[in-house]
Amino acid sequence: MILKHLTKFKKISATKEGVTRLGHSEWEEKAHAAAAAAFSRSRRVRTVKDQAGNTFLVNGTGPGPYVVMGSHLDTVPNGGWLDGALGVAGALVAMQRVLSKRRNAPLAVAIWADEEGYRFGNGLWGSRAFAGKVSDEELLLLDGDGVMLAELLAERGLQKKPRRSRETGELQAKLVYKPPIEIAAYCEAHIEQGGQLIAADKRIGIVTRVSGIRRWRLQSSGETNHAGTTPMRERRDALVPIAGMVGRLPQLVRGISDGVITCGAMGIEPGVANVIPSRAWAIVEHRAPTDRDQEEIARRLKELVATTGPRAPGVGLDMAQISAVRPTAMSGEVTDLLESVCRKAGVETMRMGSMAAHDAMSIAQVAAAGLFFIPSLRGVSHRPDEDSRREDIKLAGEILYDWALAELERVS
Amino acid sequence: MILKHLTKFKKISATKEGVTRLGHSEWEEKAHAAAAAAFSRSRRVRTVKDQAGNTFLVNGTGPGPYVVMGSHLDTVPNGGWLDGALGVAGALVAMQRVLSKRRNAPLAVAIWADEEGYRFGNGLWGSRAFAGKVSDEELLLLDGDGVMLAELLAERGLQKKPRRSRETGELQAKLVYKPPIEIAAYCEAHIEQGGQLIAADKRIGIVTRVSGIRRWRLQSSGETNHAGTTPMRERRDALVPIAGMVGRLPQLVRGISDGVITCGAMGIEPGVANVIPSRAWAIVEHRAPTDRDQEEIARRLKELVATTGPRAPGVGLDMAQISAVRPTAMSGEVTDLLESVCRKAGVETMRMGSMAAHDAMSIAQVAAAGLFFIPSLRGVSHRPDEDSRREDIKLAGEILYDWALAELERVS
Repeated sequence: MILKHLTKFKKISATKEGVTRLGHSEWEEKAHAAAAAAFSRSRRVRTVKDQAGNTFLVNGTGPGPYVVMGSHLDTVPNGGWLDGALGVAGALVAMQRVLSKRRNAPLAVAIWADEEGYRFGNGLWGSRAFAGKVSDEELLLLDGDGVMLAELLAERGLQKKPRRSRETGELQAKLVYKPPIEIAAYCEAHIEQGGQLIAADKRIGIVTRVSGIRRWRLQSSGETNHAGTTPMRERRDALVPIAGMVGRLPQLVRGISDGVITCGAMGIEPGVANVIPSRAWAIVEHRAPTDRDQEEIARRLKELVATTGPRAPGVGLDMAQISAVRPTAMSGEVTDLLESVCRKAGVETMRMGSMAAHDAMSIAQVAAAGLFFIPSLRGVSHRPDEDSRREDIKLAGEILYDWALAELERVS
Repeated sequence: MILKHLTKFKKISATKEGVTRLGHSEWEEKAHAAAAAAFSRSRRVRTVKDQAGNTFLVNGTGPGPYVVMGSHLDTVPNGGWLDGALGVAGALVAMQRVLSKRRNAPLAVAIWADEEGYRFGNGLWGSRAFAGKVSDEELLLLDGDGVMLAELLAERGLQKKPRRSRETGELQAKLVYKPPIEIAAYCEAHIEQGGQLIAADKRIGIVTRVSGIRRWRLQSSGETNHAGTTPMRERRDALVPIAGMVGRLPQLVRGISDGVITCGAMGIEPGVANVIPSRAWAIVEHRAPTDRDQEEIARRLKELVATTGPRAPGVGLDMAQISAVRPTAMSGEVTDLLESVCRKAGVETMRMGSMAAHDAMSIAQVAAAGLFFIPSLRGVSHRPDEDSRREDIKLAGEILYDWALAELERVS
């Protein structure tokens, strides 16, 4: 059953180059609708869409609180078929099985919108909106084509259009959001996206904490000029200092346990072989399991910018924070319950941290939230060859079912 | 008169952001036609277009040899109004003045196509074709949109379409080119694109040699993966080694007199903030006045690639030459003659090298060629604010006139 759902989601937008189902796209909407179709014959389960683009499949008419399972259905470009989709497919089969036994159970599936944040560079969009963690400024973000998030949400009929302030002339937007249900406890299944479970020969990883992510924009402004006639000492080359810093990034996480740092996107202007670059920018993100380590990496990055500046006279260098998500602990109660249902099922588990962000991080701000992983083959993710063993995929749905039954027991 | 021609060229494709008249574009063609219009009332001067897109305005019916002046009318994106255009406008007014005195003089203006090489990353296209310095492989170059140079030339009706080899299936192209005229002596006026003349308070710089240019593509291939879940030691990040090398480029020309090195274009795939880059590339070019210095810089660059490789395990690093133009000496006879006409006109000159490439480099391969500069204000070029003093612009046309008269005297 879980494989049937996953195949259905994959077929919506898969090509040879992988699955491309960006957040806020019609493909994401189609996938939400396909998930809702799993309960199209149910007279009790209603489909609730909220003001952020999230979809809830709710067994009951009231506001809750509900026991909730879920994840997301958007992907990065040319991504895999399991990232996000596994947690939704698992939630669907688990809810169907629970309801066949306990038709009045206060149970819901949550499908969070735009978890990847590919288009606007944010992320965990829908779950953060639910948890009240979206700022009004975030609505003013622009995508690569200059389209504003607030405009897009207005076009989709989710939010009002941004308005221009009469006094300052600046565009202003305000998120209007009311959570359609209350969550008593939340659980999310996901692929590991790393290689620890395979290495330790465990089938389930129970996540105790999720690393924080801070994202920065390093940028420089110099002066464009002819690459032949401008002597080295007279140049104000904007690229050299940015490139030099990107080349040194790995040094900044030395000695920091589970610290990672990445530059995945970079740009130059004007970008012509025989013209000295006048502008350059690099997006840098770093992750670590503790606030203290995140602070230390940020301090080292600032120091790198400060020491690079004087070596590039005439070039303006600065660094601006794009986003920050603090390290988050999962609920001890949900974690313990997950461990207990796995033990009863005879499945070997290990406790672990997650270096990837997940919607469960947002929900942990407003409810008891848990997260568990199944092994990723070769540890790869965000790639067309992302995969897991079929028996592990099925196990994800079974553990969600066991957890939901146990959690309903506990909260009722 | 020279200002009238320059204003006419500028108006063809200028905006607030500068002049954009790329090689092989309809704007370049329009500019060639506008130049030819200067002799539209002449019964003797014929317009000759060749198989590379060059335009010649020839006073006479035979193959020559001719005394020739010229330059180019293409620009970089958002370039200036004088680069190239000055030499053409100066040649037009000088030829008009000479012909009013000596209507049978064997004189011609050459307008070389695509000097900047912006679209295909090559350069001196038309003048190299004239000098027999274009290889058949060069015709297979692709622009940023994947359009092949050979296809474009076929579309413009200049060359035959490339053909697929029956044996290997590979595309093959062959440049068919016959120079429409023979050149006895060539002279080009250009803006300096640097600050030496202003600093030395001289009005004319007589170029004795032009630096060589070698252009390379540094590239790397690693493995894309999740920026959160892939530990630093397991990464095959393609960007870090390329960025590190670009950051160190200035070190490679230390101690090399008049040596310059530049990375003006760089790219990353997939270019997503939370995905480790699987590919990266950088275009690097270096220039120096002597073969020996060019060899030394190339050696240092190769050494940098060789020492960077082992620091990036699992990443494939390589470096491929895109183009190489050797340092070129200008004709001693033309240079001496230029100096002599300037002395007679009471204009202070200095001999100098050119770090920028010019069409005169190509013509020096097949004829006696000379090149002189007028001062550039603030030393800037390839920018909208590129400019020269009005009296120096007029002087360029006068020196070309004096040179042409003296050269006709000498060759006849």
